[in-house]
Amino acid sequence: MTASSASSASARQPEIRKDAVFNRFVIFSPARSRRPSDFKSHSPTKSPNPNPKHLSCPFCLGREHDCAPEIFRIPRDTDDWKIRVIENLYPAVRRDLEPSSCCEGVVAGFGFHDVVIETPVHGIHLPDLSQAEVGEVVVAYKERVCQLAKNGLLEYVQVFKNYGASAGASMTHSHSQIIGLPLVPPTVSTRLDSLKEVFDKSGKCGLCEASSEDILINESNYFLAIVPFAASFPFEVWIVPREHTSYFHDLNEQKAMDFGGLLKLILTKLSKQLNDPPYNFMIHSSPFHLPPSHLPCAHWFMQIVPQLNVVGGFEIGSGCYINPVFPEDAAKVLREVNCTIN
Amino acid sequence: MTASSASSASARQPEIRKDAVFNRFVIFSPARSRRPSDFKSHSPTKSPNPNPKHLSCPFCLGREHDCAPEIFRIPRDTDDWKIRVIENLYPAVRRDLEPSSCCEGVVAGFGFHDVVIETPVHGIHLPDLSQAEVGEVVVAYKERVCQLAKNGLLEYVQVFKNYGASAGASMTHSHSQIIGLPLVPPTVSTRLDSLKEVFDKSGKCGLCEASSEDILINESNYFLAIVPFAASFPFEVWIVPREHTSYFHDLNEQKAMDFGGLLKLILTKLSKQLNDPPYNFMIHSSPFHLPPSHLPCAHWFMQIVPQLNVVGGFEIGSGCYINPVFPEDAAKVLREVNCTIN
Repeated sequence: MTASSASSASARQPEIRKDAVFNRFVIFSPARSRRPSDFKSHSPTKSPNPNPKHLSCPFCLGREHDCAPEIFRIPRDTDDWKIRVIENLYPAVRRDLEPSSCCEGVVAGFGFHDVVIETPVHGIHLPDLSQAEVGEVVVAYKERVCQLAKNGLLEYVQVFKNYGASAGASMTHSHSQIIGLPLVPPTVSTRLDSLKEVFDKSGKCGLCEASSEDILINESNYFLAIVPFAASFPFEVWIVPREHTSYFHDLNEQKAMDFGGLLKLILTKLSKQLNDPPYNFMIHSSPFHLPPSHLPCAHWFMQIVPQLNVVGGFEIGSGCYINPVFPEDAAKVLREVNCTIN
Repeated sequence: MTASSASSASARQPEIRKDAVFNRFVIFSPARSRRPSDFKSHSPTKSPNPNPKHLSCPFCLGREHDCAPEIFRIPRDTDDWKIRVIENLYPAVRRDLEPSSCCEGVVAGFGFHDVVIETPVHGIHLPDLSQAEVGEVVVAYKERVCQLAKNGLLEYVQVFKNYGASAGASMTHSHSQIIGLPLVPPTVSTRLDSLKEVFDKSGKCGLCEASSEDILINESNYFLAIVPFAASFPFEVWIVPREHTSYFHDLNEQKAMDFGGLLKLILTKLSKQLNDPPYNFMIHSSPFHLPPSHLPCAHWFMQIVPQLNVVGGFEIGSGCYINPVFPEDAAKVLREVNCTIN
């Protein structure tokens, strides 16, 4: 996939691009936009000051008894934990229900809904952690997904993070979530079918081929961070393994650490450039029981979506998105953010 | 499609339901909810007082010269208009571009983006109008869609309304929008394919069969208002023609007036029950060049979505929605709202 050069956005005509991964159209409409570099969040996420023991927060160190049961902690067997994976006290789906087959369009709400507490300290956010510490959070995701993969009753696991109330976070203490489902969501099947179609036409995996110089932000040893060619949202970023891999949880520790460094860099850049916006990130991995024919075209990646504009009736109705910032322009802005991380 | 009775929501187990229209799963998870009748918008839409000439609003009577060109007004040929259909000054797609075929995943941003000004008076909102006046707005939609259908270059038209800033409205003066696209959005194709699958299995149109007593809110001569069996959003409402019809713009004036009355009733009930929430509505009609084989299963309807909760990373990632209010409970609450309209 190629794209025209990232010259003056204001002179550009609107363009409709096909997103061949999510199988949707995105309208790039610069007339509705400010200059790409002027894009900022109107509602920067208010962070409390770092505080190891916030009075009313059950995710803080020492408040473990106020949480739902723990699944594991890192490091193991110590009170001085860095990361805890626990059950969600208000789960969307419940591990104690009997799984059921589909009857008249209904199945039991069986499933797993876990929380990853990324730090014991209140007010510390994911990109405030060191590269190695972000890497350890990624290792915690991986370990939990590996456990869920062994369950046998689950078909798909969604790892995700909501940062900021307007992105859906109900707790301010830095955390992410993991939901394991007894079915494959149709959106996930659509993504895989769409990538299969690309593969059948071109003989290549759409995500192995997704990057080009003008949409690249940064790269690490094992990953690329890009603004995708048909990004649905302004300044959306994908972190994509360079090597073709279908499952996130096949990541080894070395790659998890490398991923953590790049994730920290991108989150820091987004925060700096866009005024600490609320955001969501999602790991798009493959269903556990993927037919072997889909493996050559299923490539996991992380999607990061800063919440900069409102999704309205057109998007809900048509499934098309309107993005006021061309991906090449967003990538250029993010590439040039001056940012050193440790 | 049947559903269990609307007894105590708190005693219910979570359920996963298949939405056979949009082909997605919705998790109903009452543990996360307050009582259905306690659901209220946290951000009621602040409405200015009615004022025929708001100083800075180009949609007000007498400010017609500050708008993009007019397409038509109702009544025709009078300064004392009730409804104006105009071009959008900041269109997402542009009518002056040359349509193009798809090249490397890109087509020109050709299309039509119009605005329907629903009243000359600032601060009057759609449900404040009389039933007949809401009916006239519906007639305006229909007339404009009929014009766009004759264009020949368009494949799909989306009529929609964003009410309230957090639902995407950038102007407070009551208006809706119409976007005509040179392509069929994949989400629309998915909906039609999904309805075709229901038809092929059951011999019946999924929307002709969508209603049952426990999800019905109100009915008029020609339409039913229901909370759909697998509503993605709490208190989502669909207004569905009783008679099987594929195209919204085939509506005659009598039915448009009937529709207007039911729409006014439902918007009034939602506002009263849910504390004047921001909302979106979308008319889901059929693409202009639908194959005849799809006509028996393509049934237009309007979807109304009050904005009561945030869409987070799980929904963006998996395409599954988490709805804390069972449709039967939402329908019961809305059925019982005490509300007289004129």
